[in-house]
Amino acid sequence: MGEVIRDVLEIAEKIKNMEIRGAGKIARSAAYALQLQAEKSRAQTPDELWDELKKAAKILYETRPTAVSLPNALRYVMHRGKIAYSNGADLEQLRFVVINAAKEFIHNSEKAIERIGEFGAKRIEDGDVIMTHCHSKAAISVMKTAWEQGKNIKVIVTETRPKWQGKITAKELASYGIPVIYVVDSAARHYMKMTDKVVMGADSITVNGAVINKIGTALIALTAKEHRVWTMIAAETYKFHPETMLGQLVEIEMRDPTEVIPEEELKTWPKNIEVWNPAFDVTPPEYVDVIITERGIIPPSAAIDILKEEFGWALKYTEPWED
Amino acid sequence: MGEVIRDVLEIAEKIKNMEIRGAGKIARSAAYALQLQAEKSRAQTPDELWDELKKAAKILYETRPTAVSLPNALRYVMHRGKIAYSNGADLEQLRFVVINAAKEFIHNSEKAIERIGEFGAKRIEDGDVIMTHCHSKAAISVMKTAWEQGKNIKVIVTETRPKWQGKITAKELASYGIPVIYVVDSAARHYMKMTDKVVMGADSITVNGAVINKIGTALIALTAKEHRVWTMIAAETYKFHPETMLGQLVEIEMRDPTEVIPEEELKTWPKNIEVWNPAFDVTPPEYVDVIITERGIIPPSAAIDILKEEFGWALKYTEPWED
Ligand SMILES: Nc1ncnc2c1ncn2[C@@H]1O[C@H](COP(=O)(O)O)[C@@H](O)[C@H]1O
Ligand SMILES: Nc1ncnc2c1ncn2[C@@H]1O[C@H](COP(=O)(O)O)[C@@H](O)[C@H]1O
Repeated sequence: MGEVIRDVLEIAEKIKNMEIRGAGKIARSAAYALQLQAEKSRAQTPDELWDELKKAAKILYETRPTAVSLPNALRYVMHRGKIAYSNGADLEQLRFVVINAAKEFIHNSEKAIERIGEFGAKRIEDGDVIMTHCHSKAAISVMKTAWEQGKNIKVIVTETRPKWQGKITAKELASYGIPVIYVVDSAARHYMKMTDKVVMGADSITVNGAVINKIGTALIALTAKEHRVWTMIAAETYKFHPETMLGQLVEIEMRDPTEVIPEEELKTWPKNIEVWNPAFDVTPPEYVDVIITERGIIPPSAAIDILKEEFGWALKYTEPWED
Repeated sequence: MGEVIRDVLEIAEKIKNMEIRGAGKIARSAAYALQLQAEKSRAQTPDELWDELKKAAKILYETRPTAVSLPNALRYVMHRGKIAYSNGADLEQLRFVVINAAKEFIHNSEKAIERIGEFGAKRIEDGDVIMTHCHSKAAISVMKTAWEQGKNIKVIVTETRPKWQGKITAKELASYGIPVIYVVDSAARHYMKMTDKVVMGADSITVNGAVINKIGTALIALTAKEHRVWTMIAAETYKFHPETMLGQLVEIEMRDPTEVIPEEELKTWPKNIEVWNPAFDVTPPEYVDVIITERGIIPPSAAIDILKEEFGWALKYTEPWED
C-alpha cells in the first residue's frame, strides 16, 4: 500500500509545534498537504491513492485534536474525494478531484475575509455607530469595507480584558482613518444606547448557531438584544464546528491566571482567592441576528446547512478518512 | 441676626478641600456641624437660632453641589428642625430637636453598614455563590455577616476596570476567610449560571429606584435578570437622590482617560482614538430585586417612600434652609 510523502509529515509537524498558526493558515496548510500528497503520489490505483490520502488526513487531524478549522479543511477536500472515489473515479480523476478541492478551499479561504467584508458592508448604513469586541479580521473587514465605500461610521471598541486585543483593533481601525471610541468592557451597556450595530467575530460556531467567541461577547450580544440593536457575527465557514452535530460540546479553554494578574502580584495574594480565566463564552443563537460568511449572510439557524454543504456532514457521519 | 460659628466654617472648608471624604463621613460631619451650631449658638430667640441654622446649612450645602449624602444629612436634621420651628417651638425646644436629629442621623449612619449586613444576610442561604462588582462596604457587610452566621458562601468578584476595585474586595473578603473567585468583568455572563445571588452597592438611587453605581453594574444586573438570579443592592438611605424627584438627572461623571490607558501610552495613540471613561452606569429598577437599607429591605419602587420619610421630601418641595 502507498506511503505518506515527506511534505505532509513536515507540515503536520509545523502545525503541531505551532510554527504554522492562526485558524486560516492552519486550514490552508492542511488542504495544501493533501494537494501535495495527490500530486506527488506514486500510487498505481485509485484504491492505493485513496488509502494514502486517508493516512495523510489522519496524521494531519491528530496534530490538533480540538481545532475547528483544521479538520474542516480536511473534510472539505476529503469529502469531495470520497464522493469521486465511491463513484468509481479512476486514478487520474481522483487525483484531479482532490487537487482541485484543495485549491478551491485555499482560494476560498484567502478570499473569505474580503468577501465577508463585502457582504457585511451592505448591512452598514451611513452614520452608523458600531460596537465591536476583541480583534477579529472578519469583523474589521466589514467595517473597513463600509468605510471605504464612503459610509461615515464610528466604532466603539471594548478593551477586551485580559489580553487587551481591543488596543490592536482600535489602532488598526484608526489607521484606516475610522474614528474610534475606546472603552472598558463594562461600558458596553452604557454605550449601547448610542450604538446602531454590533459586529463581532467568532472562534467557532455550533450546529444550532451558538457563537463561541472571546469572553464578553455574550454580554454585549445580550445588551444589544435588550436595545434592539443587531448583533452580526463575521465568520469564515471553516469556523463552523461539525462535531457539535454529534452532541459534542465545544471545550471552553481555561487560560493561565497570570494573564489576569501578573505572576509577581499573584504570588502575594491570599490562598483563598482563585483567579479563573476562561478564554471564551457562548452566545445563544437568539442573540445573534445574522452570521456573515464568505458564502453569504445567513441566520444562525442555517449553521447546519453550512455544515452539510461545505463539509458533507450528515446525520449519520463518519470522517471521510475513516472507514 | 445670629452668626454661623467658626466650627461650621471649618468643617465646610474640610469638606470642600476633601480633607473629609467618603459619602458616610461627609454626611456625618455635616450633621455634626449643625449640631455644634445648635449647641454653641448665642441666639436669644427661636427665630434667631433658626436663621443661624439655615445659614449654616446653606454654607455646608454649597461645598459640594453634586453630592448626595451631604444634602441628605442636612435635610434629615433641618426637616425635623423646621417642623418644630413651624409648630412654635421655643428656643430650647428647637435647640434640643436639632441636636437630637443630628445625633440620630450620625448614630444611624454609623450603624447603617452593620444593619444592612443583618438584613441582607437573611436573604443569603447556605451554599450560595454570590457575584459582586467593585468595592462596596454595604455589599461586603451582607456577605461578611452571612459568613459569620456560618453560611458557607463563595463569592465571584469582578476585577472592575478601570480602577481594579475588585482587588480590594477580593482581598477583604478573603481576609475574613471567604473563598473568592476573581474574574474579568467580561466573564459575568459566563459565570452567572453558577451564581445564586448578586449583591452590589450603589453610588446613589433615584426616585424610581434606578441604581447609579460603578460602570458595569447594569450589565451584571441585566444578565442576572436573564438567569432569574436576584440582584440585591445594598445602600444606606442617605444615598437616595431627592433631586431626581424634581426631574433632575444624576450626572454620570466622566473621568480621565489616563485611568483606562496610562498617560505615557496614550500619548503614542493616533488622534482619531478617543478614550471615554464613564465612572457609573444606571441600572433600571426592573433589574433590581430589592434594595437593602439600614431601615429594612425595600423594593426599588419604594425609593420614593424613603425620600419622603427620611428627608421630608414632598411633591411641593423647598429645601428646609430656603424660604
Ligand atoms: N460548550 C458548548 N458547546 C457547544 N454548544 C454550547 C456550549 N455551551 C452552550 N452551548 C449552546 O449555546 C447556547 C447558549 O447557551 P447559554 O448561554 O447557556 O444559554 C445554547 O444553544 C447551547 O446549546
Ligand atoms: N442620569 C440619570 N439620572 C437619573 N435617572 C436616570 C438617569 N439615566 C437613566 N435614569 C433612569 O434609570 C432607568 C434606567 O434607564 P436605562 O438604563 O436607560 O433603561 C430609567 O428608569 C431612567 O428613568
